[in-house]
Amino acid sequence: MNRKLKCFYVISMAVLVLAIMPKPVIGQQTLNDVKTERGLDDADVLAAVKTFMPRGGRDEYFGFVGTGNAGTMIVYGIPSMRIYKYVGVFSPEPWQGYGFDDESMLMLKKGSIDNRINTYGDMRYPALSETNGKYDGKYLFYSDGANSRIALLGLDDFETKQVLQHPLFINCYPGVAVTPNNEYVIQSSQYPAPWDNKSTDVADFKSGVTFWKFHDSDEGAASGHHKGRMIKDESMTLELPAYTLDFFDVGKAVSDGYVVGIADKGDNNYIYVIDYKKLKGAAKTLVNDFTVVPLEAAIDANAVAFINIPSKAKKVKVSPDGKYFITATDEALVFDFVKVKDAMAKGIFSGNADGNIPLIETNSVKHGSLALGNGVVDLTFDYRPNVVFSSVFDDKKIVRWNYEDLKKEGDIVLTFKPGQVMIPQGLSSEPHSNYLIVTDKEALYDNYPNVGPVRPSFQHLIDISSDKMVDIYTMSLPQANIYGSVAVLRTTIKPIIRYETGTNTRTGEISRYKTVAGQEKIEREGNRVHIFGTMIRSHITPEIVEVNEGDVVTFHLTNLERAEDETHGFTIDTYGKHGSFEPGKTASLTFTADRSGVFPYYCTEFCSALHLEMEGVLMVKPKNYSGPGAGKEVALTKEQLEGYKKNYEDKVAVIKATQDIINGVVQWLKDNNYQDYPYVAALVEDAFDQLGQAASSKEKHEKYAAEGKWREAFLWAEQYWQYQVKTADVGLRAKELLTIELEKKK
Amino acid sequence: MNRKLKCFYVISMAVLVLAIMPKPVIGQQTLNDVKTERGLDDADVLAAVKTFMPRGGRDEYFGFVGTGNAGTMIVYGIPSMRIYKYVGVFSPEPWQGYGFDDESMLMLKKGSIDNRINTYGDMRYPALSETNGKYDGKYLFYSDGANSRIALLGLDDFETKQVLQHPLFINCYPGVAVTPNNEYVIQSSQYPAPWDNKSTDVADFKSGVTFWKFHDSDEGAASGHHKGRMIKDESMTLELPAYTLDFFDVGKAVSDGYVVGIADKGDNNYIYVIDYKKLKGAAKTLVNDFTVVPLEAAIDANAVAFINIPSKAKKVKVSPDGKYFITATDEALVFDFVKVKDAMAKGIFSGNADGNIPLIETNSVKHGSLALGNGVVDLTFDYRPNVVFSSVFDDKKIVRWNYEDLKKEGDIVLTFKPGQVMIPQGLSSEPHSNYLIVTDKEALYDNYPNVGPVRPSFQHLIDISSDKMVDIYTMSLPQANIYGSVAVLRTTIKPIIRYETGTNTRTGEISRYKTVAGQEKIEREGNRVHIFGTMIRSHITPEIVEVNEGDVVTFHLTNLERAEDETHGFTIDTYGKHGSFEPGKTASLTFTADRSGVFPYYCTEFCSALHLEMEGVLMVKPKNYSGPGAGKEVALTKEQLEGYKKNYEDKVAVIKATQDIINGVVQWLKDNNYQDYPYVAALVEDAFDQLGQAASSKEKHEKYAAEGKWREAFLWAEQYWQYQVKTADVGLRAKELLTIELEKKK
Repeated sequence: MNRKLKCFYVISMAVLVLAIMPKPVIGQQTLNDVKTERGLDDADVLAAVKTFMPRGGRDEYFGFVGTGNAGTMIVYGIPSMRIYKYVGVFSPEPWQGYGFDDESMLMLKKGSIDNRINTYGDMRYPALSETNGKYDGKYLFYSDGANSRIALLGLDDFETKQVLQHPLFINCYPGVAVTPNNEYVIQSSQYPAPWDNKSTDVADFKSGVTFWKFHDSDEGAASGHHKGRMIKDESMTLELPAYTLDFFDVGKAVSDGYVVGIADKGDNNYIYVIDYKKLKGAAKTLVNDFTVVPLEAAIDANAVAFINIPSKAKKVKVSPDGKYFITATDEALVFDFVKVKDAMAKGIFSGNADGNIPLIETNSVKHGSLALGNGVVDLTFDYRPNVVFSSVFDDKKIVRWNYEDLKKEGDIVLTFKPGQVMIPQGLSSEPHSNYLIVTDKEALYDNYPNVGPVRPSFQHLIDISSDKMVDIYTMSLPQANIYGSVAVLRTTIKPIIRYETGTNTRTGEISRYKTVAGQEKIEREGNRVHIFGTMIRSHITPEIVEVNEGDVVTFHLTNLERAEDETHGFTIDTYGKHGSFEPGKTASLTFTADRSGVFPYYCTEFCSALHLEMEGVLMVKPKNYSGPGAGKEVALTKEQLEGYKKNYEDKVAVIKATQDIINGVVQWLKDNNYQDYPYVAALVEDAFDQLGQAASSKEKHEKYAAEGKWREAFLWAEQYWQYQVKTADVGLRAKELLTIELEKKK
Repeated sequence: MNRKLKCFYVISMAVLVLAIMPKPVIGQQTLNDVKTERGLDDADVLAAVKTFMPRGGRDEYFGFVGTGNAGTMIVYGIPSMRIYKYVGVFSPEPWQGYGFDDESMLMLKKGSIDNRINTYGDMRYPALSETNGKYDGKYLFYSDGANSRIALLGLDDFETKQVLQHPLFINCYPGVAVTPNNEYVIQSSQYPAPWDNKSTDVADFKSGVTFWKFHDSDEGAASGHHKGRMIKDESMTLELPAYTLDFFDVGKAVSDGYVVGIADKGDNNYIYVIDYKKLKGAAKTLVNDFTVVPLEAAIDANAVAFINIPSKAKKVKVSPDGKYFITATDEALVFDFVKVKDAMAKGIFSGNADGNIPLIETNSVKHGSLALGNGVVDLTFDYRPNVVFSSVFDDKKIVRWNYEDLKKEGDIVLTFKPGQVMIPQGLSSEPHSNYLIVTDKEALYDNYPNVGPVRPSFQHLIDISSDKMVDIYTMSLPQANIYGSVAVLRTTIKPIIRYETGTNTRTGEISRYKTVAGQEKIEREGNRVHIFGTMIRSHITPEIVEVNEGDVVTFHLTNLERAEDETHGFTIDTYGKHGSFEPGKTASLTFTADRSGVFPYYCTEFCSALHLEMEGVLMVKPKNYSGPGAGKEVALTKEQLEGYKKNYEDKVAVIKATQDIINGVVQWLKDNNYQDYPYVAALVEDAFDQLGQAASSKEKHEKYAAEGKWREAFLWAEQYWQYQVKTADVGLRAKELLTIELEKKK
């Protein structure tokens, strides 16, 4: 019998033997039927169930991967390999209004040249923030190779918080690394170029490695937010001669304080070593207002050295315990970090590279080497001691080997040429997983459906939990040219669900434009118009805004929702203004009203069944306008007034009925000790929060009714009811969840 | 025993009974192990295998869904639910250089106001082109609700080919429909507004329905391209009073020539019916240079009528045979299209709606109605006769019912509130599938992992192949607020793999800037500089470009690759210029060289192991520059010349060895009748094509060698070898594939 036994042959046999048992029927097809129909074998079935995510299931890891030129970051789940998010980083991203609202534009402009925002990126190797060399789940960093920018993302809300322009480099290596306690975020140049934007003289070409000082402080932050930022004035750049610089990594534990990276010049290939603690003490100068350690000063301080290597390395990475660094070269080289430190500390050098950089004698610091095959591209560390996996491009292999013993332990031959490899947390001091992710650079027809000349990138998920590696899933990553990625245990990240009401999400502080229900207003000073508005199902307040042609107008909008996933979009037709407002967010949209006419604005996210009613109009009166139109108080006819009275009375009855439902739910929740279930308790808090906001609406509708102003009374009763509905909605969901929790306990 | 019998309980039993059989071991885990570990039941296993896509597997359908504000279109596979592509439509998309290169910017500017490109969209319901009411796989259309644009995408390469700005509407309904032979692409206004951009008077508010005339002709197209375009001068708009317009659909077969859509005004709700064949004959006028059929003229021509309905419809869709149209209202209404046609033809009306629009008496044309539940959102047609599926939001249900018999046939209760529903080809005259896709608007924590306040959209795949519907996969759609979608049998679409060399992909014609190997050049006239360059592994030619500060510079680049998925990116550091060049594509990047200095340019797509070598430098000499630098012919030293001679001779030896490999492969392919295998034959053609391009490089390196110009000889020998390597690469892949084909035949 075929050794690769068909698992479901067993079922068929069982059905024959145990004929009394009913045939398993789900959706009226058996597993065997589906296997036959779809041409799957047992290995496929096993792969399918290893990656399938049932509803409500949670991925073990979050993976983060840059999209290269698209300038966004992808967040995906492992092992489901579903993409959950694209986050705008170096490019405007319309869906989230990134680079559209004033707050994000201001942030992007701070990281721009001459206030011109570059609208694409080149982002490849991210870094996650660390505490004692372990991922702490707070921040993520990216380098923009093409436009020499560096970015900080907050993982509290998965948004970009800071973008800085490099003051010296014309281009950067599109990778980044952090020191084990986030003291520095490190970025290097890639192709050499003069720093002064004047010279085109080859003699002026240079390179450098920059240490961006990072400060983490939550002072003044809205709840749930971290306020860490890179501080330009406390950062420094090590000046290097004109070398092409490539991937680099940071030492940890025994090698804490060091950076190793790839440098080459013509046919000469090196690993550079920087002792950044010594660099701090070296003599400094200012170039373009940025602190620079001149090469001579760094050499004098014994802060930099090169190690000659026989061929160009594609990668160099530090082992989880910090004892070694290893190159991705055909013959993988393992260097002993302690020996390298010793050589530098004692000044034991064997010569100089270009620029008088001291050379450490290669063999004196080499632990050993191992030939892995043709075209080694990358390496990644495993949680098993001394185990590393390398991708071998031309041989279509992933090789598992031991870098202490310098022995191969196994391999898998793939159906494609592997690129970058990544094990979750493999770059931290605690590699964590039974999964390995590998990029497939060529989306060839024999493997993937043809979707035209330009193809998505692909990643494969390799199961490395046993000695036999198995390729179990092929993931498509559209709108991205991908390189490396990082992944962290999902539970390490603590994302918020909503913002504190009125949050400027880019600064993490409460916006001075925060507006709450009942305090909406339009302020005018000369031709400057500020609208302080709110959004909540199913109204944008105010619903009519009148301005004059030529006015400079800002909509400051606050989303008052407290419910989960209740984002509202906001778009003004034709004007090109657009924003995304997550629950609690305040953002501003500024424009010059240079076209007269009527421009509907509306919510662009499906927010409830009444979504389409969330609309209003911007009326831009032509210059010298004197015609009819809105803005004048139009008296209601008696008939209209009666109609509004009837509407009001009907609505009050509905309010009464809705309140009864709410009371019932609240009583049930209390009776069942909802406060003992954290997620349910948060929902109930939400529900009360909704209702708390409603008090002023209730006061108003009752006041207007007493005055016989039925239209106003109806409008505010309607508003009150909107709050009630939301309260009921959240309350019922809390009840549903608590019911499930109680069921579980039985 | 539990009726929902655990399928793998059977296995355990079988293993007991048939103990002699070996335990199935793959990756050293059994299916049972994985089920237990991951908490999956049999239904999960079945769902997993129904959607898992093994390597090389092909999805049955391509689904297309707009991303709303992101302004891009998603292409995904059914049933794998993997996303293959985001295509830039209404927004710039940096990954593909859409809105970055001159060609796509020109196209987008044609569809703009005052040359200002709006950088987001509001795109919801797409339409696929049709031939006799069946999808023909050639084009796809989208409406931009927010910015009143309409777009045409070519499915030969999945790129946007035309974007037009609506000359009248301030906003549009973000859906579109085509007539059964693509005569017209239909777009309507949504919220009423004046058309003239001057008035803000409520009396001037109006609505309209536009018929964009579509011409399909392949004349003058590069091979593989379709050249259909919408023609503004032959299009027309039906003027309507100030109604809010919503979803609409087009008649087919017996109802060919009609459009039905949703209109409302205050509490009055209607279905509008337009006979567009009669509209063509109606009196017309010009508004803003666009043909308008005034409302009175349309009424005179009997081309428009309304049908009163009791509540607002969320959707109205025409049945696959064209006999009925059905509304998504709590009580679904089924209208008899033949009766509606009759009423209009005979002028049998029962009154008038606002604007004097004739009303057809509702009951006289109603086939019947059926109550489906609370909050019906959408409907979609099945391939089974008269079967339709409706989503019922508040009841969390999908209901299957028969619109001829007006009877419910079954339902599924979901774990979420369903939004839009879609069966592949369900809007054409041949619904096709056993799958139903349904949107889930609320990404709540109890169902999905928390990724911060803003969440992805989700779609569920429902297996409707049997009477029992089963929810089998939850798909995440990031960077998108999704509504409707369409899907077509994958094999209906015939995407090209590469462009004819020199194609302007936006026009589908050969670009006048096409440049082939050996003809690269830099042309200057005053301060205007044109660079005619090429890209092919692993060179960008020219590699040095010198200009003066203030010059207006255009890089015209052609990707000479013929190999599959050999896209090159192109980025000039700091300058914000970026492009994506698929095999064969020619595109241009124009900018003013307003910053002096040195700016590396390089390929941003991983294109081969030598990817990082694909670079060059733009040198922008400061004004009044007289210093040293490039551009001057520097004489080689004797030592350098000797070095190049050695390099040349080594390279010639390598060329010889490479040619031997190629010859061997070619012979093997011929011996095995490669021409009988179409995909292999295409690859071989590719390989020869590569080598064909190399002839001029060979001539050159031999000529320079004869002249003793060793540097030039070496450079051209290197170029020749690059072609050879590509030839060998493609040839070896052809051999690999043919080997597999031959194996299969055994």
